[in-house]
Amino acid sequence: MMMNLDSECFCKRLKDELTFHFLRHKDIRTLSDFLGCRQVPAGEVLWKQGDACEYLAFIASGRVEVSKSTEFPGKNVIVGIYGAGSIVGELCLLKDQPRAVNVAALEATDLLILSKENFEQLMEQHPDVGARLLKGMLLTVSTRLDKAFERLTAVF
Amino acid sequence: MMMNLDSECFCKRLKDELTFHFLRHKDIRTLSDFLGCRQVPAGEVLWKQGDACEYLAFIASGRVEVSKSTEFPGKNVIVGIYGAGSIVGELCLLKDQPRAVNVAALEATDLLILSKENFEQLMEQHPDVGARLLKGMLLTVSTRLDKAFERLTAVF
Repeated sequence: MMMNLDSECFCKRLKDELTFHFLRHKDIRTLSDFLGCRQVPAGEVLWKQGDACEYLAFIASGRVEVSKSTEFPGKNVIVGIYGAGSIVGELCLLKDQPRAVNVAALEATDLLILSKENFEQLMEQHPDVGARLLKGMLLTVSTRLDKAFERLTAVF
Repeated sequence: MMMNLDSECFCKRLKDELTFHFLRHKDIRTLSDFLGCRQVPAGEVLWKQGDACEYLAFIASGRVEVSKSTEFPGKNVIVGIYGAGSIVGELCLLKDQPRAVNVAALEATDLLILSKENFEQLMEQHPDVGARLLKGMLLTVSTRLDKAFERLTAVF
């Protein structure tokens, strides 16, 4: 459903502009060899809950909506809206299980894709960069967990 | 509020018995040099929301209750109950901020403590063990986030 960019130049720029917690300028250059680019038009579904889980995406620009399905078909509950500088799909890199959430682009969105296979190669070939990436992912997910706890607390 | 164990022997056994996602037997031996032991009686508060954030704890045995404070003093909402094989306090290792939750022992609980300082030394001296520890922490926190999303979805 997503299209590969024709423009290598555009992809190179996306990679050059990537920033993420704990990653140094030199790390980004190392990481960029392991990344692909995807351009997603507004409204497009990146994946649905239950789909096969194959990659993590860094959001280079745009915004995505993350939702969980409910027992009522077609009725989803939004659990997060993530924008530039954030990630989606991180659980895939660690666990063989289907996608746990639905993700759709709220607006035209540029993504940098890290496949499970490339993540494992990165960890093997550049463990120091891999460790800083993991720290950044852990910080992102821990912060989201705290926000989810705040929302749960506000409900009661 | 927590007491250090007199028995080195008991502490050694706790460390030997530690298991955690992605950590190999050899990793546990490396990691154990960086860990301290704490025994916490039932009902004791490990820390309160807003306290200084200094360490991560592996739960070796027992159970802890994790809660968020509400706008009503003394009224907390339980957001998780974690037992043996799990962790609490992981956000501390990555971010300089006060504790985001309250944690209390539901029963007599044995903990293995990894201070922020020791975590940084581990990452420096044994980046491969550190990376596997980070993967395990990320898997734990991502799984909790998905559960929190499920609870949020069930509420609506």
